[in-house]
Amino acid sequence: MNTPKIVIVGGVAGGASCAARSRRLSEEAEIIMIERGPFVSFANCGLPYHVGEVIKEEEDLLVASPELFRDRFAIDVRIQCEVTKIDRENKTVTIRSMTTGETYDETYDYLVLSPGAAPLRPPLEGIDHPAVFTVRNIPDIRAIKEMTGNGQAKSAVVVGGGFIGLEMAENLHHIGMQVSVIEMAEHVMPVLDKEMATMVNEHLDSMRVDLYLGSAVQSFENGPDDKPLVNLASGEQIAADIVIMAIGVRPETGLAKAAGLDLGPRGGIAVDGFMHTNDPNIFAVGDAVEVEGYVMGGKRLIPLAGPANRQGRLVADVILNPDKPKPFRGVQGTAVCGVLGMTVASTGETEKSLGLMARDGKVIEYEKVYSHPFSNATYYPGAQQMSFKLIFAKEDGRVLGAQAVGLAGVEKRIDVVAMAIQMGATVYDLEEAELCYAPQYGSAKDPVNMAGMIAANVLKGVSKIVHWPELENFDGILIDVRDPEEYATGFAEGAINMPLDSLRKNLDSLPKDKEIWAYCYVSQRAYFAERILTQHGYNAKTVSGGILSYWAADADA
Amino acid sequence: MNTPKIVIVGGVAGGASCAARSRRLSEEAEIIMIERGPFVSFANCGLPYHVGEVIKEEEDLLVASPELFRDRFAIDVRIQCEVTKIDRENKTVTIRSMTTGETYDETYDYLVLSPGAAPLRPPLEGIDHPAVFTVRNIPDIRAIKEMTGNGQAKSAVVVGGGFIGLEMAENLHHIGMQVSVIEMAEHVMPVLDKEMATMVNEHLDSMRVDLYLGSAVQSFENGPDDKPLVNLASGEQIAADIVIMAIGVRPETGLAKAAGLDLGPRGGIAVDGFMHTNDPNIFAVGDAVEVEGYVMGGKRLIPLAGPANRQGRLVADVILNPDKPKPFRGVQGTAVCGVLGMTVASTGETEKSLGLMARDGKVIEYEKVYSHPFSNATYYPGAQQMSFKLIFAKEDGRVLGAQAVGLAGVEKRIDVVAMAIQMGATVYDLEEAELCYAPQYGSAKDPVNMAGMIAANVLKGVSKIVHWPELENFDGILIDVRDPEEYATGFAEGAINMPLDSLRKNLDSLPKDKEIWAYCYVSQRAYFAERILTQHGYNAKTVSGGILSYWAADADA
Ligand SMILES: Cc1cc2nc3c(=O)[nH]c(=O)nc-3n(C[C@H](O)[C@H](O)[C@H](O)COP(=O)(O)OP(=O)(O)OC[C@H]3O[C@@H](n4cnc5c(N)ncnc54)[C@H](O)[C@@H]3O)c2cc1C
Ligand SMILES: Cc1cc2nc3c(=O)[nH]c(=O)nc-3n(C[C@H](O)[C@H](O)[C@H](O)COP(=O)(O)OP(=O)(O)OC[C@H]3O[C@@H](n4cnc5c(N)ncnc54)[C@H](O)[C@@H]3O)c2cc1C
Ligand SMILES: CC(C)(COP(=O)(O)OP(=O)(O)OC[C@H]1O[C@@H](n2cnc3c(N)ncnc32)[C@H](O)[C@@H]1OP(=O)(O)O)[C@@H](O)C(=O)NCCC(=O)NCCS
Ligand SMILES: CC(C)(COP(=O)(O)OP(=O)(O)OC[C@H]1O[C@@H](n2cnc3c(N)ncnc32)[C@H](O)[C@@H]1OP(=O)(O)O)[C@@H](O)C(=O)NCCC(=O)NCCS
Repeated sequence: MNTPKIVIVGGVAGGASCAARSRRLSEEAEIIMIERGPFVSFANCGLPYHVGEVIKEEEDLLVASPELFRDRFAIDVRIQCEVTKIDRENKTVTIRSMTTGETYDETYDYLVLSPGAAPLRPPLEGIDHPAVFTVRNIPDIRAIKEMTGNGQAKSAVVVGGGFIGLEMAENLHHIGMQVSVIEMAEHVMPVLDKEMATMVNEHLDSMRVDLYLGSAVQSFENGPDDKPLVNLASGEQIAADIVIMAIGVRPETGLAKAAGLDLGPRGGIAVDGFMHTNDPNIFAVGDAVEVEGYVMGGKRLIPLAGPANRQGRLVADVILNPDKPKPFRGVQGTAVCGVLGMTVASTGETEKSLGLMARDGKVIEYEKVYSHPFSNATYYPGAQQMSFKLIFAKEDGRVLGAQAVGLAGVEKRIDVVAMAIQMGATVYDLEEAELCYAPQYGSAKDPVNMAGMIAANVLKGVSKIVHWPELENFDGILIDVRDPEEYATGFAEGAINMPLDSLRKNLDSLPKDKEIWAYCYVSQRAYFAERILTQHGYNAKTVSGGILSYWAADADA
Repeated sequence: MNTPKIVIVGGVAGGASCAARSRRLSEEAEIIMIERGPFVSFANCGLPYHVGEVIKEEEDLLVASPELFRDRFAIDVRIQCEVTKIDRENKTVTIRSMTTGETYDETYDYLVLSPGAAPLRPPLEGIDHPAVFTVRNIPDIRAIKEMTGNGQAKSAVVVGGGFIGLEMAENLHHIGMQVSVIEMAEHVMPVLDKEMATMVNEHLDSMRVDLYLGSAVQSFENGPDDKPLVNLASGEQIAADIVIMAIGVRPETGLAKAAGLDLGPRGGIAVDGFMHTNDPNIFAVGDAVEVEGYVMGGKRLIPLAGPANRQGRLVADVILNPDKPKPFRGVQGTAVCGVLGMTVASTGETEKSLGLMARDGKVIEYEKVYSHPFSNATYYPGAQQMSFKLIFAKEDGRVLGAQAVGLAGVEKRIDVVAMAIQMGATVYDLEEAELCYAPQYGSAKDPVNMAGMIAANVLKGVSKIVHWPELENFDGILIDVRDPEEYATGFAEGAINMPLDSLRKNLDSLPKDKEIWAYCYVSQRAYFAERILTQHGYNAKTVSGGILSYWAADADA
């Protein structure tokens, strides 16, 4: 059957991609795309930047229009229509017009659900204050811009320090507002590991964004001039002109659940590798579904546009080109966020996600290395230092995940590692990656190579590493192998200064019966010191990440 | 034996990397590094930017000094010493001091040759004019800067439009000189395929660099005021204050050859995967050696810093940690060059290199697709369009190579494809790559995904493509599916305008017995048109790359 009737619920990333690909695969299919909101195919990911007036015109956010779907794709797009019910037995959906309130039924051969995820709006006292907003679609942004657009709103509280929260913070800051960010966790970017995210904390701080970490909002009040007051569990109260709630999203599963479709353990719609729900005629894609973690398995909720688009496209293939598709390969969680000039990116597993897996019984022995490489050759002006964390399996060196934070060149390295992870690469593969090098773009040993080399040394036993948190129970000797001037700027607690370049001369002052941990600025000289010490019969280790990582960890304490 | 005596010839990329890693692996080895020039460990790749005063201080080019090698690595560095002879039988080298002229012998257990490659300086009449320079090391740059540094030299001729030539052109342009580039081939960047490189031609043109393509220098003359005159084979004569010869490099094999070491078919020192020459005690690395092409095999000369560094490091492992190393995996040829704001990058095979392989009997059936994606989401300001070419095996979709040219985001995509190629990825893997996406960094379907999707469609038969050069022998119908306003700005010869969005209505005007080729601006709408046509029983194909590729090809005609 190449003439099925396909009804799609949701007309943005997953839904619109499915619709467009479906038409390309079949001129004869009947394709109906139903969207509750007034727009289809809008750039959700651009919404914050429209508030920040970086994206000037609202229409720039409209990637495609119902007219384009009609003319180019011969797709019947129905905006401001909500699917309110699925009758699986009769293969019909009930549709309610949001403008007239009328309802009617529509039959389908295949139903594709791409309803997305809704911003969480917990039932806190006062949350219905008219200046408390969430950010999901163009009407949301219009409402916010009504308050920010005329320059009258001067201060904002953003609740939630994840991707969307920080993008909103950046943009509100960009239009000159005083911004406070309230985050329940000890650091922003809760998907990252703590020691990486603390650098973002510091950056926000330096940009005069007020950070309330480990803070929960308890209620909202109506303050003077009808402006909202935000009450924290700590008792603090913050006044602001507007409040943005960005504490996460929840998959829109109401429709699916009511129709008896299976949900998964994380609360998203359960699907197989071909995006089938438990009803063979119903597919689900995008933010509403649970996906398989690509690296370590396990069901996850990972709301990202790329996967939503690819899943929508895949469903079209499954329906209309059924002998061809490969199953969806799962989601790595490759993500990036710009935060006031800083870039934060990650791919694959974090220690946090590995911890969660382990709690579910899926244990993998891993190691991690920290480095602080530069975006490009340091002899070329403008090179920016980033922080890079690589996580890999102890057994075989398989790359499990990477996180990076910095001002330049960050997402490039994460993209390369993302491709490496997809292909099952090990740290040895990173070590010998052959990447673009000219001084304004990279280094002869790219940060990706360097991370691979450091990790390979660890796995091969060329280097033994420890991490700063282990210092607490350490009763050996900690040496700082930087130069005295560097040491003088601050050192780790208990460290004695033994500069690398005179280490060989001073070996006698070190004991052979105690462990010696060496650190420097980033770890490189410490590693060189470790090699000297080890070969002279000392029991030496390198503290991964150097004082930079110490400071990052410390900033946090 | 962990106490060998290692003598290294050449103290820069390959040599210095070998020395440093050797010391890290063994405190007891005796390591002597001999360098003909006055500096070790300098940033060759930064030399042009010092001429351009982008890298302000000469000392910034010195990545490490003999003192550092002594203090940190306990390495005996001998600068201004040339190794003039290898006595393999007695395992000694003869060393001549460049300052005193004295010679002496030094024994070795292992000899590592990393002498690099010398700029070609063909025996043209007048080439010894004092204002005709080559660019290899710091003394070369000093000499050039003596003429450019005081602002008196106003014009330059750069002979050779490869990486180094164009970097020199950029930098001379940057300090305000009028620059002419003379290139024997029909386009600059001879390692790229022609239709990709022509964009660089145009860019240089737009930046008022005078390009002489398909032009050979015949001789130099001494002109008025002792300035050089460059005579082209065409009879043209160009006057300039200085001339830079950058027509390529030749591996420094004199020493190896005199010692009876094998050279390979391309004239470099022959080595195995562990960088052994045919003498088990002599290794060779870097620009002087022939490497195996990683993608398609075959011996190549690929002078790049990354591989030189990795090979030097590998040799240290082979000597001192012999149970551990993996053999060198060959060179993909990942390279990047900045050209006056434009970035040109490539990895893996080109059509040109595949053509050479085929001539040597190594034939692979390949296909290619062109795309013109943007560096980031087009709805976010500043997105820059690039040109992207992906080459892949017809049989299994294995990625063979990629080239890209544009103003932003270019080297990132080539790096991702480089990693993909390293891991043996297919276009299907690119299709489902999961890369960083936020609007200022990329797109939900990244350029890498898009190239993969386009290629996958071709391999799966969802799309049939043709390439512009085939138009010459085409007797079907060529349709331009852009809007009339776009068509009016220029169209391919013989094309009739049939806008995509009204194509379905106008199908009757097209014949079913002729092939129909569709094109648009970049190919996307053409592909959509192709799908409509095919499904309505027409014999349709898409011209890959659209009018942008047509213009690129045309610019060249
Ligand atoms: C502010 C913001 C910034 C973001 N930034 C990024 C980013 O930088 N990078 C990234 O990868 N991802 C980002 N995302 C996430 C990304 O937008 C989503 O992952 C993606 O849009 C999910 O696609 P989807 O099709 O599942 O859902 P959506 O794109 O949300 O589309 C679902 C649509 O279905 C409609 N709908 C729901 N129920 C019904 C119903 N019953 N009847 C009719 N219509 C219905 C909704 O109105 C909605 O328009 C961002 C999201 C937001 C909100
Ligand atoms: C101007 C310029 C720009 C470049 N830009 C880039 C770039 O952007 N990216 C990139 O990847 N690559 C670039 N390269 C190439 C890169 O520099 C080389 O691939 C790399 O340096 C090769 O390393 P090597 O050790 O083989 O040789 P080299 O680094 O050239 O070192 C060889 C050394 O050996 C010495 N020597 C030779 N013979 C003897 C002897 N008999 N006795 C003693 N000493 C001897 C020489 O004096 C020389 O210093 C550039 C090169 C140049 C010249
Ligand atoms: C606008 C929208 C409907 C487009 O859907 P689409 O047509 O499938 O996707 P794109 O415009 O990205 O184009 C991709 C298609 O063009 C093809 N294509 C792209 N460039 C091409 C080229 N140069 N030559 C040939 N084909 C090309 C691709 O192969 C693909 O077709 P396929 O799926 O049949 O293989 C959908 O992406 C959308 O709604 N986007 C906005 C919402 C959204 O994604 N939000 C979240 C992110 S902000
Ligand atoms: C300067 C030079 C001698 C350095 O050699 P090197 O010490 O081997 O190389 P790097 O400084 O790049 O450091 C790499 C080493 O530090 C280690 N390292 C780097 N960062 C580290 C970190 N944060 N923690 C632990 N180890 C680290 C790497 O693992 C590697 O050691 P290994 O080879 O034993 O695994 C050599 O690169 C050189 O001469 N460069 C200039 C010339 C040149 O390359 N020219 C061409 C390009 S312009």
